[in-house]
Amino acid sequence: MLVSEMGEFELIEHLARIIPQKGPGVVKALGDDCAVLQIPGELTLWTMDSTIEGIHYLPHLATPAEIGRKALLSNLSDLAAMGGTPRYAIISLSLPAETSVEWVERLYSGIAELARKTGVSIVGGNTSRSPQGVRLEISVLGTVREVEILRRDGAMPGDIVMVTGSLGDGYCGLESALHPEIPVDTQTREILLARYRNPVLYLEEARIIAASGLASSMIDISDGLSSDLLHICNASKVGVEVDSRKLPISDEVTRFSKGSGAEAWNYALAGGDDYGLLLTAPERTCEELIKKISSSTGTMLTAIGRILEPEELRTIILPDDSRQELNAAAWQHF
Amino acid sequence: MLVSEMGEFELIEHLARIIPQKGPGVVKALGDDCAVLQIPGELTLWTMDSTIEGIHYLPHLATPAEIGRKALLSNLSDLAAMGGTPRYAIISLSLPAETSVEWVERLYSGIAELARKTGVSIVGGNTSRSPQGVRLEISVLGTVREVEILRRDGAMPGDIVMVTGSLGDGYCGLESALHPEIPVDTQTREILLARYRNPVLYLEEARIIAASGLASSMIDISDGLSSDLLHICNASKVGVEVDSRKLPISDEVTRFSKGSGAEAWNYALAGGDDYGLLLTAPERTCEELIKKISSSTGTMLTAIGRILEPEELRTIILPDDSRQELNAAAWQHF
Repeated sequence: MLVSEMGEFELIEHLARIIPQKGPGVVKALGDDCAVLQIPGELTLWTMDSTIEGIHYLPHLATPAEIGRKALLSNLSDLAAMGGTPRYAIISLSLPAETSVEWVERLYSGIAELARKTGVSIVGGNTSRSPQGVRLEISVLGTVREVEILRRDGAMPGDIVMVTGSLGDGYCGLESALHPEIPVDTQTREILLARYRNPVLYLEEARIIAASGLASSMIDISDGLSSDLLHICNASKVGVEVDSRKLPISDEVTRFSKGSGAEAWNYALAGGDDYGLLLTAPERTCEELIKKISSSTGTMLTAIGRILEPEELRTIILPDDSRQELNAAAWQHF
Repeated sequence: MLVSEMGEFELIEHLARIIPQKGPGVVKALGDDCAVLQIPGELTLWTMDSTIEGIHYLPHLATPAEIGRKALLSNLSDLAAMGGTPRYAIISLSLPAETSVEWVERLYSGIAELARKTGVSIVGGNTSRSPQGVRLEISVLGTVREVEILRRDGAMPGDIVMVTGSLGDGYCGLESALHPEIPVDTQTREILLARYRNPVLYLEEARIIAASGLASSMIDISDGLSSDLLHICNASKVGVEVDSRKLPISDEVTRFSKGSGAEAWNYALAGGDDYGLLLTAPERTCEELIKKISSSTGTMLTAIGRILEPEELRTIILPDDSRQELNAAAWQHF
């Protein structure tokens, strides 16, 4: 059945059955002009992110459930990066009239599964017709304790720059799908594509980092490491030095870069779609933080550089020891 | 200059200067992964609404400032309808690469002007490229006192149904622009089109109604009177009887309906785009409410029908005293 055959109001009721609506502080979810919430905690965090067909995803490269999951994940990742706990989401969906109801159900299942896993209640939404392509807009509210909040503007000279997981996998996954002519073995290609389609959400890690009080700033890597690191530097009014040899690069990205002829560190630096955490912490607390995250979550936290005092000094040390200016050679929408 | 020449981050900084970011409870607005809020009040209200080129507006029928104003207004109207005070907004904007920066500035000026007037802080946003057409997604957070909240499910048998202002003007404005062959004088056409482009926001009226404690349910008319009245009936599990002769119809809608040959009450019943308030109140408090709103705001509140006990009885009394079933002959997106 197509959404045009089902009608807007029936579609909304239909989708409402798929999603978790109840949770602490939800006074009224769907079914009125607004959601009504009694938000617990000290401070409220609020974000909104777009997922647009042809811009943020290509329909032939992901299942509808994966598209839905990633759309919610990109919002949760923003909440995580500030040390918060995501609690509520609203979904605004615009669909071409010829979209099948089954496709939308699968999209919502992907959202619902991640929402359940992270304790997020879906408290509202609206649907409209789209003249072209699917567009999904998700907004997430969460809470954070004032003392635990991690902003972009807290990095201090001497702080160590760290990242979670490995870098560039998501980007290489997309590249490998878009460029089948690049010679890479099938298994590597599949692993990378899976990482692009189902990125890791570092929510637990972010909560531990925030609660530890050991970090000075944090952001999630959605635009690419260099671009997001520059966001921290600009907000904190500091410089930075990143060592390309220290960037955590998976075996798959290494193999892919051999096939493509590009430098693996370049993928790690410029590739988006990883949703890892990028953080800074004073040198003396750095080891403790790395151990804490590793022992409680198994996630690797890697030191990749150092914050510098002179604001204009933002460099990357290349494998041959030469230095290059760090550019936001990353994803911009225009 | 085009947005593609300016680049995403510069565009965001540019637009940030146009909008009011500060306000009570805004700990941090733009510039981090999330907005940080210390929301005052008891309960939080949350809504999100889409404004899509070709679906919610036609670019040749409105200025960018009017498009922006109405996009925010539709959200504020949802907050108002629950008796709340709007406080914060996030804007997600997707634009074709060839959009001019000046056009976006004017769009944002329209949003900013209404935000200032209503005391709303714009605390976040994101921009992305749109493969086709402009899409604007606005989410608004507000607060409400628990005792003042007005939901859709409070209507009781015997309650009087009332609306603010006049009905059908917005819809007739759109119709008159889409059908220049309908014979109507230029002044009428212009007045109706202006009402379509710049609908009234009944925020103050809604606040007074909520604070008075005299109403039993409320909704804003965005889909059309019949459709939104059925939302109240469904949520409250009641029937309703509307008298078509009591519907508040402006002289302009009357004149337009003479030209088009359609019934004016039909425009009032089925037309969307009015953003009036639709509410119910016990009969004994009804007069008091009408006087209160009239004396404090000058806005006319009109009794148009009565809530009935049998849930299945939902009728409209036609001008010839015959009765017809009330249908959601209104706007559905699919």
